[in-house]
Amino acid sequence: MISSNSEASCFAFMAVIGNDIDSPNLREADMSRRPRRARRQAEKEGPSISQLATRPILNPFPPMEILASHDLDRIHDTAMRVVSELGLQFQNETAIDILAANGGEVDRDTGMVRLSADRLMEWVGKAPSAFTLHARNPEKNVKIGGNHINFSPVSGPPNVSDLDTGRRPGSKQDQDNLIKLGQSLNVLSLAGAQPVEAMELPAHTRHLDFYKSQIMFTDKVWNARAIGRARVTDALEMVAIARGVDRTQLKREPSLLTVINVNSPRIMDGEMLSGLMEMVENGQPCIITPFTLAGAMSPITLAGALAQQTAEALLVIAFTQMITPGCPVVFGGFTSNVDMKSGAPAFGTPEYAQAVIIGGQLARRYGLPYRTSNVNASNSVDAQASYESMMSIWAAFMAHANIINHATGWLEGGLTASFEKYILDAEMLQGLARMMVPPVVDDSSLAFEALKAVPPGGHFFGVEHTMERYKDAFYSPILSDWQNFESWEERGGKDATTRANGIWKTLLEDYVPPPIEAGIEAKLDAYIAKRKLEIKPG
Amino acid sequence: MISSNSEASCFAFMAVIGNDIDSPNLREADMSRRPRRARRQAEKEGPSISQLATRPILNPFPPMEILASHDLDRIHDTAMRVVSELGLQFQNETAIDILAANGGEVDRDTGMVRLSADRLMEWVGKAPSAFTLHARNPEKNVKIGGNHINFSPVSGPPNVSDLDTGRRPGSKQDQDNLIKLGQSLNVLSLAGAQPVEAMELPAHTRHLDFYKSQIMFTDKVWNARAIGRARVTDALEMVAIARGVDRTQLKREPSLLTVINVNSPRIMDGEMLSGLMEMVENGQPCIITPFTLAGAMSPITLAGALAQQTAEALLVIAFTQMITPGCPVVFGGFTSNVDMKSGAPAFGTPEYAQAVIIGGQLARRYGLPYRTSNVNASNSVDAQASYESMMSIWAAFMAHANIINHATGWLEGGLTASFEKYILDAEMLQGLARMMVPPVVDDSSLAFEALKAVPPGGHFFGVEHTMERYKDAFYSPILSDWQNFESWEERGGKDATTRANGIWKTLLEDYVPPPIEAGIEAKLDAYIAKRKLEIKPG
Repeated sequence: MISSNSEASCFAFMAVIGNDIDSPNLREADMSRRPRRARRQAEKEGPSISQLATRPILNPFPPMEILASHDLDRIHDTAMRVVSELGLQFQNETAIDILAANGGEVDRDTGMVRLSADRLMEWVGKAPSAFTLHARNPEKNVKIGGNHINFSPVSGPPNVSDLDTGRRPGSKQDQDNLIKLGQSLNVLSLAGAQPVEAMELPAHTRHLDFYKSQIMFTDKVWNARAIGRARVTDALEMVAIARGVDRTQLKREPSLLTVINVNSPRIMDGEMLSGLMEMVENGQPCIITPFTLAGAMSPITLAGALAQQTAEALLVIAFTQMITPGCPVVFGGFTSNVDMKSGAPAFGTPEYAQAVIIGGQLARRYGLPYRTSNVNASNSVDAQASYESMMSIWAAFMAHANIINHATGWLEGGLTASFEKYILDAEMLQGLARMMVPPVVDDSSLAFEALKAVPPGGHFFGVEHTMERYKDAFYSPILSDWQNFESWEERGGKDATTRANGIWKTLLEDYVPPPIEAGIEAKLDAYIAKRKLEIKPG
Repeated sequence: MISSNSEASCFAFMAVIGNDIDSPNLREADMSRRPRRARRQAEKEGPSISQLATRPILNPFPPMEILASHDLDRIHDTAMRVVSELGLQFQNETAIDILAANGGEVDRDTGMVRLSADRLMEWVGKAPSAFTLHARNPEKNVKIGGNHINFSPVSGPPNVSDLDTGRRPGSKQDQDNLIKLGQSLNVLSLAGAQPVEAMELPAHTRHLDFYKSQIMFTDKVWNARAIGRARVTDALEMVAIARGVDRTQLKREPSLLTVINVNSPRIMDGEMLSGLMEMVENGQPCIITPFTLAGAMSPITLAGALAQQTAEALLVIAFTQMITPGCPVVFGGFTSNVDMKSGAPAFGTPEYAQAVIIGGQLARRYGLPYRTSNVNASNSVDAQASYESMMSIWAAFMAHANIINHATGWLEGGLTASFEKYILDAEMLQGLARMMVPPVVDDSSLAFEALKAVPPGGHFFGVEHTMERYKDAFYSPILSDWQNFESWEERGGKDATTRANGIWKTLLEDYVPPPIEAGIEAKLDAYIAKRKLEIKPG
């Protein structure tokens, strides 16, 4: 009998009761379920890495709504005024021609383009609310839209870090290792853009090596680099080779993503417009993401920043529909705030979470798929990195975001890709994904017979109802350590970040490249060799 | 002009632009807002600790619902079968008499008590859906119910830890320091039970010293210890002295809380029942919390564990209404799961979050205030402690929990109170609290004039719209560090846990006891002296 008014003494009780299940029988049963490779691993250095199975991740619950519809209307109305009265600067003549030919009011001296609200919404209305992305492995095709949630790993940092070597400029080896981790983690349905810059490679052909790594090391859908038309062309050619399809089929079956940033406030860069046009002419989806940091590139008030985000995104989305009506496109949100003391960007803040959730309300209003991110501003893989990311991830789920970029590995406000953060994020994403699967409620799970069988003060470890289910009743973590303090300390007292270091190494050791049809690699190499001769630096 | 397809280069841009705001003027303006004491502090060792102002915390958005109502019905129906067919063992003769006199079907040999579903729901229906708790400082009164959320700090661990000394048995000094932290942090509206055991004090009178510390060091509502009647009587007498009210007024204006754990499965301990009866006879609210760890003290299936939690909680809640109809009482949820490999309890898991949210659905169904917790199973104040806590806190907010126990400082599944975790939790709670305040949408915040004033490619740092608002536009964190990597490294490269160590020390240095009327301390001391002579060990 236990008598205490605190939950603590019950845990002491658990520590005793807990021994019951740690019997050789159950241990063996558990071991026998592991594949040989993992078992070898487990014998060597502890339990193998278990993961959620690959499957679509959805949020079956209603999205969260922070603003009432009349307040959402006001943000929309202000966005319409920005588009029709102020406009965006398009730094690309071809783009301006297209806009002018399709109802845009253009000033050729300044590059400013305005569009009436009616015209804007007409074009935006042509974009589909959902679409499918085709991977070179058709089992890895993903649906973008509805309440589907897809995670894409860290993209773009110049630096990389791990606990062994610390922070350093990225290299091709880091890039490839991060791509392999992305392939290994089932929770990631997308492969993303370059996880870190391969700084030792020439900038003008770096994208070719990156594309090849994406094709060889992963069979998930990846991102083209959209700075200039040629980089996109290369991606189109190479993904067509990888999939063994022609460019016509590729246009029907989009296989690439890219992020198009608006250089807020109100500039669309010329080279990025070229990349966008090449994507859209070929039916590939762009994620249009204004860079609206409230207080810096946007008004300091969230309502104003979101009005600007909406205006900038919708005008560029309208532009995609002028090029290829019906081309898939994604409404991207990246609104956060800056630290007004230092001007440094802040991420995973309460304001960020609100912007994400309201952004989801806006995307649904326009019938567009929605992209957010898993962001944080921490300089180390610590508690701050964790809670700022959890704010970002929860907000994304509550918002019904369809693509979550930078979902694993993003650190330091995006300036560093961290190997340990990659694992930490995978754990958090898996946890949320599992939480989105409602528990079964039926006679068997309601367990009245088990409740009847266990006497007051007894326990449920040994009953049949438990024994039938104990192997996979609960989420099995990658990273969390639930040992008691004494056992944990005895085994080295490793914190989560230190454990993550071991986990990414194990994943890389266990990495197996996805099968690819014979001959494809040679074709890719020939294409790359040809292009490396053609492309001029600068 | 920036051209890149990654957000990263925009951050580099920020680092440049950011310098604009780091001007002497803005710095001075910022400094002048700080109180003298904090400024002294800031000059000495960095910025002072800013907090959210004390105010009620609410979730104005609809609660999340994981189960459809027909599934909720089935959990309810199973709970009714547990109460009416299986029953609970009440290990207290007086309690059994009361139950027998009020419709309970009792077996005096075994102590088993059953109650029909109709009777049960009739009694449960008498409990209020909301009530007010009266603090000795009326400004600290709190409302329990509706969409009000109240945080109460860690309660009950035998151990305490900090980065300086590590993990050790709790002492009175630790207890008092943790109480002072609880008083200092505005986000905590409740003071809780003993934050850690004062192990060096005699167990049989320890509660008296704890009560005095609560009364002297905080002016928020605190918890009585409910093991046995006498400890509750002492709390009633001492809180009446502290508030300067008589016992009749105290009964009308409840001033204490306590947690009553059901020793699941299906035992109500005798001493705890005595404590409960003393609370309820005197109109004070109990939080009835079954200890239903799925797979150990409950069925391994969440539906079964929740049916058991509901049955156990409701039968004890019905019992409180037999004693004092209309007495405030709280539906407590603590359902989590165990690690089926080791039998160790797991917290902040996906299953835990689901149990919290479904528990909220059940509490609303019964019209009862609802209690959850901020839990984690980590052995150090690391990323795991952070993400497991975030799962717990988000779930509590989404569930419309009214009381979140162990909200700050809980570590190691409740076996340790951590000073650094206390600060980490305060940061996470503040972030969520701020997120629950929707942004203002009006002409001024929509900022069309500011959007018009800033040219394409410009920035909003200098515009009037920003200058008028920059001081308090955004949430100002306690713990988060948003410096860039170089500055952060230069200043010691401290991770969040290390920074938390400095923050709790600063809070303790800055601690000022809340004013208390002259003479009250002497009265308390006299009461305690008398009681220490009366109470016999054991």
